[in-house]
Amino acid sequence: MSNSIGKMFTVTTFGSSHGKAIGAIIDGCPAGLCLSEEDIQIELNERKPSNSELSTSRNESDKVHIVSGVFNGKTDGTPILGIVFNKDVDSSAYTNLKDNPRPGHGDFCWISKYDIYDYRGGGRGSGRNTIGHVIGGAVAKKILNAIGIEVISHVTQIKDIKSKPMSLKLIKKYSRKNTIRCSDLEAAKRMEKKILQLKKKGDSVGGIVETIILGLPVGLGEPVFNKLDAELTHALMNIGSVKGVEIGSGFKSAELTGIEMNDEYFLDEENNIKTKTNNSGGILGGMSNGMPIIMRMSVKPTPSISIPQKTVNLTKMEETEIIINGRHDPCICPRIVPVAESAVAIVLVDHLIRSGLINPCKI
Amino acid sequence: MSNSIGKMFTVTTFGSSHGKAIGAIIDGCPAGLCLSEEDIQIELNERKPSNSELSTSRNESDKVHIVSGVFNGKTDGTPILGIVFNKDVDSSAYTNLKDNPRPGHGDFCWISKYDIYDYRGGGRGSGRNTIGHVIGGAVAKKILNAIGIEVISHVTQIKDIKSKPMSLKLIKKYSRKNTIRCSDLEAAKRMEKKILQLKKKGDSVGGIVETIILGLPVGLGEPVFNKLDAELTHALMNIGSVKGVEIGSGFKSAELTGIEMNDEYFLDEENNIKTKTNNSGGILGGMSNGMPIIMRMSVKPTPSISIPQKTVNLTKMEETEIIINGRHDPCICPRIVPVAESAVAIVLVDHLIRSGLINPCKI
Amino acid sequence: MSNSIGKMFTVTTFGSSHGKAIGAIIDGCPAGLCLSEEDIQIELNERKPSNSELSTSRNESDKVHIVSGVFNGKTDGTPILGIVFNKDVDSSAYTNLKDNPRPGHGDFCWISKYDIYDYRGGGRGSGRNTIGHVIGGAVAKKILNAIGIEVISHVTQIKDIKSKPMSLKLIKKYSRKNTIRCSDLEAAKRMEKKILQLKKKGDSVGGIVETIILGLPVGLGEPVFNKLDAELTHALMNIGSVKGVEIGSGFKSAELTGIEMNDEYFLDEENNIKTKTNNSGGILGGMSNGMPIIMRMSVKPTPSISIPQKTVNLTKMEETEIIINGRHDPCICPRIVPVAESAVAIVLVDHLIRSGLINPCKI
Amino acid sequence: MSNSIGKMFTVTTFGSSHGKAIGAIIDGCPAGLCLSEEDIQIELNERKPSNSELSTSRNESDKVHIVSGVFNGKTDGTPILGIVFNKDVDSSAYTNLKDNPRPGHGDFCWISKYDIYDYRGGGRGSGRNTIGHVIGGAVAKKILNAIGIEVISHVTQIKDIKSKPMSLKLIKKYSRKNTIRCSDLEAAKRMEKKILQLKKKGDSVGGIVETIILGLPVGLGEPVFNKLDAELTHALMNIGSVKGVEIGSGFKSAELTGIEMNDEYFLDEENNIKTKTNNSGGILGGMSNGMPIIMRMSVKPTPSISIPQKTVNLTKMEETEIIINGRHDPCICPRIVPVAESAVAIVLVDHLIRSGLINPCKI
Repeated sequence: MSNSIGKMFTVTTFGSSHGKAIGAIIDGCPAGLCLSEEDIQIELNERKPSNSELSTSRNESDKVHIVSGVFNGKTDGTPILGIVFNKDVDSSAYTNLKDNPRPGHGDFCWISKYDIYDYRGGGRGSGRNTIGHVIGGAVAKKILNAIGIEVISHVTQIKDIKSKPMSLKLIKKYSRKNTIRCSDLEAAKRMEKKILQLKKKGDSVGGIVETIILGLPVGLGEPVFNKLDAELTHALMNIGSVKGVEIGSGFKSAELTGIEMNDEYFLDEENNIKTKTNNSGGILGGMSNGMPIIMRMSVKPTPSISIPQKTVNLTKMEETEIIINGRHDPCICPRIVPVAESAVAIVLVDHLIRSGLINPCKI
Repeated sequence: MSNSIGKMFTVTTFGSSHGKAIGAIIDGCPAGLCLSEEDIQIELNERKPSNSELSTSRNESDKVHIVSGVFNGKTDGTPILGIVFNKDVDSSAYTNLKDNPRPGHGDFCWISKYDIYDYRGGGRGSGRNTIGHVIGGAVAKKILNAIGIEVISHVTQIKDIKSKPMSLKLIKKYSRKNTIRCSDLEAAKRMEKKILQLKKKGDSVGGIVETIILGLPVGLGEPVFNKLDAELTHALMNIGSVKGVEIGSGFKSAELTGIEMNDEYFLDEENNIKTKTNNSGGILGGMSNGMPIIMRMSVKPTPSISIPQKTVNLTKMEETEIIINGRHDPCICPRIVPVAESAVAIVLVDHLIRSGLINPCKI
Repeated sequence: MSNSIGKMFTVTTFGSSHGKAIGAIIDGCPAGLCLSEEDIQIELNERKPSNSELSTSRNESDKVHIVSGVFNGKTDGTPILGIVFNKDVDSSAYTNLKDNPRPGHGDFCWISKYDIYDYRGGGRGSGRNTIGHVIGGAVAKKILNAIGIEVISHVTQIKDIKSKPMSLKLIKKYSRKNTIRCSDLEAAKRMEKKILQLKKKGDSVGGIVETIILGLPVGLGEPVFNKLDAELTHALMNIGSVKGVEIGSGFKSAELTGIEMNDEYFLDEENNIKTKTNNSGGILGGMSNGMPIIMRMSVKPTPSISIPQKTVNLTKMEETEIIINGRHDPCICPRIVPVAESAVAIVLVDHLIRSGLINPCKI
Repeated sequence: MSNSIGKMFTVTTFGSSHGKAIGAIIDGCPAGLCLSEEDIQIELNERKPSNSELSTSRNESDKVHIVSGVFNGKTDGTPILGIVFNKDVDSSAYTNLKDNPRPGHGDFCWISKYDIYDYRGGGRGSGRNTIGHVIGGAVAKKILNAIGIEVISHVTQIKDIKSKPMSLKLIKKYSRKNTIRCSDLEAAKRMEKKILQLKKKGDSVGGIVETIILGLPVGLGEPVFNKLDAELTHALMNIGSVKGVEIGSGFKSAELTGIEMNDEYFLDEENNIKTKTNNSGGILGGMSNGMPIIMRMSVKPTPSISIPQKTVNLTKMEETEIIINGRHDPCICPRIVPVAESAVAIVLVDHLIRSGLINPCKI
């Protein structure tokens, strides 16, 4: 099993939901970046349960410690270890799950593959492991911010409730303003209501998260096997519960004709080459074309629900029923928002270094 | 730029549309696999233009030569070089494109990134470069076949014409029976008509291709950053014109609740653990769960159309209009079918070796 | 900067001499290996200063904590984080070194490359960072032991004092019996005396360390760019102070003729193919041939000496003189012994997995 | 088996001694480098048999074809395929070797590992495969030359005959002036005589090759697991027949004391920081320090000799005798000279890109 992503800017994560700690090593960060624990903590706080009914009741401060890689407030080019110790561990709800794989979870695959499986809280397969992504992403975002690149994610749909079309400016302004992380504040209220309704029934619900990248130079990405869209999609699909990713006009492209799909070029008032439309979602031939990059991912409903479900007991090899207790989010979309930003930020920094647009040694 | 894919089973492709040759090196193929040029040729023939009105009129035999890696009819563990020499090269249609990037193509990104760009026929950005994918895929498929794993792709939609729901058995039976590569033979006829209508107008059209994997063992894939769905999606997004990939219930998952989405487990008549439904598309927690893997990708309309389009002349830095001649497929979906199979097969073999399910040295 | 080694069994190290902690992540360890903190501690204790006059007076317990990757006493296939917190940090001796690079150290290169440099105790360039190597090596050795492979290192020369030729059996028996780590106990005494003599003068001394691998199967290594001898040499040269590595008859090979050098084959009493001599040092064509692997590395004298030396002040850009205080080993050879074993063990496990001789998922 | 080297500048080689062709793909070469077949041919001609008695009588023109990656005389950033077709193949001398592994060769390891082995002319284990190294090295050297970095190799010893100490200037001047590739022209004559004496007896002989790098900036290399000395050593040990590599004072370091070994810093007339001596061989802490890099490798005698040798017949599993005919160099050192330069050049370019000192996309 490999737990690393990135070729030149490499993030390796470790830890499990109910183990001692969770975290990440960032290797390949250039020296000279101002970095404090607070920088990472801000991002981790965005990932934390929201203390509302919308979220798991597990109560973790998720306090990060930077153990290495920072000297006198700046990165020094050596590996950055960020670690969060688990505090509020309650494994009691999981003992009945030991031999009974939960539908929609990876339990059955883990056990089949490794024989040994830390089933407590989903072990390393838990959503809690995205703490590592976010630690890596926090460092990547600091680098991106320094060169004017922004990554913004927001929820655009929960079940059949969709946010209205909004300008990038308004999306940026409102995307972190509510617990749903939906920039359309009115839709957000209806989404919240829908989630709580389903939660009451012991059920959960899915949705759609959109990720936007602004400020990218032209030509990021490699044109054959490391296309920017392919690597971004890879990063987003790596997030648990994501079942599909599209870019630009995405699945709608299938129904368009060439003249409808193609984005014609023009010169803007600053004499930059831009496209009139952005059906491509900012990537052509695997490389950024200078337009905003717009991706959407579909997120399945949280598989942990308290409605009884059929499963198979692996020891007895007989069919049985399972009821999942434990503490779970009825909808994972809001908490995927910072994780998606992190995943994307890591890919971008890696590509920027690989393209010679960020110096690999010192900023 | 890196032109390789795979960690243990590595395919590196080279060449351009109007250069001397195109091909691939397969490095990491175990010794002892029977392999002939014919094995690769069969797959390349599936990728070739169809000699019908549906396809480019470029007439290439695409004859492959195995230059290394095979000794007495078997692979010997050393790198396999497969090469196809370009024959029917006609660069005349491309000179006007030199400074005028084509909408929907990567031209502008290539020139911005590398300054030098072999614009003839799209250079290395051409769809013709998937010859390298298919050479690599042909070797991968031979390995998969030897252990009972099948990869099947077919077209399920062109514009708004959709194939009817069909059993896996029938899909397998009919998927390569027509030039559209649609298993629903009746829908295929309507698709063909639609494509030719649009072609007559100088336009093109998109569609959807589905890829199915059968016979995979449980536990393929790595649970954090190299999830099987993420790596498969990466491979499919690397194919030019693909704008979205989904697995299982994909984008529909966003509208489902947990009890609708989760696939409950049961024991089949051979006492194997299976799921009743397959909303997950055969992958949970980044690992295969023993069910068929089902992915769909949206394919945009061919960007090369003969309708006049606006662009910007890069030398003069002024807006201009472009008419694209050359020889192009009005719909790329049928020819993506074998490329998607190849891309997927390469990922699978790489993962099977990385998981210890195929011996890396000898079969 | 990349701080990882290994393709399938990957060790990433972090931390600096006077930072908060030092350690390693081991990624790609198969599940099912019994592993305790004690297993790693034993190896770390071999690396620790010897509490004799031969060693630095820095007093660290080097207590390791396993933070992740072990469940119920066994590895579970997820990344293993081993961490050692620094305790006895005294940076006072280093402030005068901030701008004055020490001859024989990497200071000047670090500052030139990264601008920022944690000069305290040599920072990440310190020999103390081999704690990470040893944590990784301890896990690798446990795997090797489980399949009957042994790695033994010992000191064979200090300055001009050489150990007598000894059988592998005796080397194994005595190699860890004294603080010099020389199996020839009589020579060890003379070596110790020589080191203390030089230490009294404020000087230091070099030597030679030999590493032997027993029990390796035939065919480990890859024949072109990842030759086993090349990867082992790489690993040994990565250890600070090593200035040369040779295998088998090594540099003496230059003076031999073919008939003297070639190792003829014969059948031993168990009908195994062996060679009569072992000038090749157990590796031919980049692959193991079933004979013991024998490598030697030359270790330069510790560069930190208290004799005044000329250097250049980097701020003033003028020549100056430096006297190095701090706590240093007058001869680094004995402490390189466990580090060399670790470095070699990591390469071997990685190659065994890459060759299909160890299952990458579970033991 | 992996046949690639380099992380950002990657060379993948293919082919075998008696197969159809041999060559290399260079992936990651920046666009904009002037490159012709002649540039590569010059280097291949240096590697070719010398047409003297010192060399194999196999008569190959080794004509290289650039198949891809060059457009209008310049690299365009896409993979460069260089290929040499084998012409003068005579496999008759090898049939008796099929089951009888040659002492000192990798035959036995190949067969044990892969079962199938192209034994003709040593197959992929043949020295002829360094054609791939040299093709990659020729491209790397062009890049290095463009930024003022030189790599020079020369023979310093054959058996016990050593070249006299010479200035870098004279070494550069004379290193390619004779078939022995020894800059000391007088010693070269004695070396030649010695080689021919041994050849007459059917024997062969070893020697020492030195490689010097001039013009490197300070700070190349990574300080932990990818030290410049470690990666250079790795590259040199990958060359067949090399049994040891040392840098600077190398194995002599073992006998020195700290004050003898350390290179003190001073300011030269141009106010650059230099060291008075160069015992470190230009690398400290794994990074270049601005001084010339000086490495030496020991080369064993060619294992193919016509004196009868004992071996084991693998089919009959009984001891037997072998006489090796075929066409062989009695001393491989002169032909290792260009290969060593190539191997080193590839590592340097890869590190220069990884360090941000060469732009990865365009020169």
